[in-house]
Amino acid sequence: MGLETLSTNRSFGGVQGVYKHASAATGTDMTFSVYVPDHAPGAKLPVVWYLSGLTCTHANVTEKGEFRRLCAELGLIFIAPDTSPRGEGVADDPDGAYDFGLGAGFYVDATQAPFAPNYQMWTYVTQELPALIAQAFPTDMDRQSIMGHSMGGHGALTIGLTFPDRYKAVSAFSPIVAPTRVPWGQKALPGYLGDDQTAWRKHDAVALIEDGARIPDLLVDQGDADNFLTNQLKPELLEEACKAAGIALTLRLQPGYDHSYYFISTFMADHLRWHADRLGSS
Amino acid sequence: MGLETLSTNRSFGGVQGVYKHASAATGTDMTFSVYVPDHAPGAKLPVVWYLSGLTCTHANVTEKGEFRRLCAELGLIFIAPDTSPRGEGVADDPDGAYDFGLGAGFYVDATQAPFAPNYQMWTYVTQELPALIAQAFPTDMDRQSIMGHSMGGHGALTIGLTFPDRYKAVSAFSPIVAPTRVPWGQKALPGYLGDDQTAWRKHDAVALIEDGARIPDLLVDQGDADNFLTNQLKPELLEEACKAAGIALTLRLQPGYDHSYYFISTFMADHLRWHADRLGSS
Repeated sequence: MGLETLSTNRSFGGVQGVYKHASAATGTDMTFSVYVPDHAPGAKLPVVWYLSGLTCTHANVTEKGEFRRLCAELGLIFIAPDTSPRGEGVADDPDGAYDFGLGAGFYVDATQAPFAPNYQMWTYVTQELPALIAQAFPTDMDRQSIMGHSMGGHGALTIGLTFPDRYKAVSAFSPIVAPTRVPWGQKALPGYLGDDQTAWRKHDAVALIEDGARIPDLLVDQGDADNFLTNQLKPELLEEACKAAGIALTLRLQPGYDHSYYFISTFMADHLRWHADRLGSS
Repeated sequence: MGLETLSTNRSFGGVQGVYKHASAATGTDMTFSVYVPDHAPGAKLPVVWYLSGLTCTHANVTEKGEFRRLCAELGLIFIAPDTSPRGEGVADDPDGAYDFGLGAGFYVDATQAPFAPNYQMWTYVTQELPALIAQAFPTDMDRQSIMGHSMGGHGALTIGLTFPDRYKAVSAFSPIVAPTRVPWGQKALPGYLGDDQTAWRKHDAVALIEDGARIPDLLVDQGDADNFLTNQLKPELLEEACKAAGIALTLRLQPGYDHSYYFISTFMADHLRWHADRLGSS
């Protein structure tokens, strides 16, 4: 299956690995990390997907996320993909901005030049990488869940809402909940998807809920000292949509916390327990 | 006192800060990190010192060490200094090697040119920085302990053995236990201290014990898949010395673990509980 192991390190009794493969979806090499806890021979473990935010690679959460202790305790495989295609010939923001292009794939399949050939992150994260993971690791793919941070929270929410049967739990740290209504999304969505606002709504969690998508419940942590809270994140829009739709949202505004991994790592254990409960792995 | 705050982030209910000051000992600006857990107004908390290894700054353990959860639970302040002076005009290894000069101060006061003017890390870590910390943070300086990794394990052991009354607990991850007898130390000690082997023995944990230094007990974790185990670390030398001296060494050879923070973070909680027990903070 063409999976190259870049590194493995024993940690909390399991193995933290980093791997590379040639992606058909993106037309590039893609790097991702997988933590596999210690497990009985032949056991198949549930899978937690973690989607990262703007500028990140697999490495940020892998190094700073503090997820391994709980994944070991709860028997969860933890997967961290990259946030965009990378490499020679991959288009970037014309000004090199951090919020579009490299490191900023927004988990969509781009239709617009020059991004369409490589920026196929929706297909990559929901189809190609799961198929690879299912073959290469001791996974129970009937028990998957998804979480993410910021742009990756947007990805987790939109993917979780689109495939409610596949992902048994959905949660997010400081997610972009309504990209069609904030500057980051108002740049990225037309940039990747063009002017068709119907296409945008499929990549906006609040719009998806307004248009009928349903999941039973949802955990969101948001720092109240987050610089992006009022102009880019707007959790109140998710709160309104969930209330109207009857989705049981647990939205926790965490006092004094910012947008960083110091915040994420603090509440990672709570999220993993939430996922394990819904994956039947607690 | 000239302490500049570079960053603060709320984490696990407390504050992770990074600070800079002009050091008289090293003649340079020095950066360090301090985690202060949430605490009652007016409370004074015990202090755990963490000394880092070759090539590291304060940032490695601060980002990857996974210490904040336990420090918050146990009420411990956690301090991570840099591993050498840095900046314009600070001498480095003539070949730019990683194991001497910048990032490799070995926690000694250099006597040799061109290192002596700046490489005063023993004085910095045992005198200047504690005095600053005592003034600037809510510390109980009668309750201090020390740990470290690799070169920082060497620092923690030698400092702990030299000031047994000051540091109530001493532990290390994969420490250099006998630098006078391994390549890293055989390069660094003459480089900083010259040819006087008496001076070297004061910076060699095994030699200090052989020469009469005593602490009641000691916790050391060492990965058995550590690339540096047999040629640089040699925990068996510490085992022999502690046995002969009646020091209660708990040496745990951890199967499959390497020299990285994936190893350190796995066992950090055990070390912090060991420290808290001896600091009366568990």
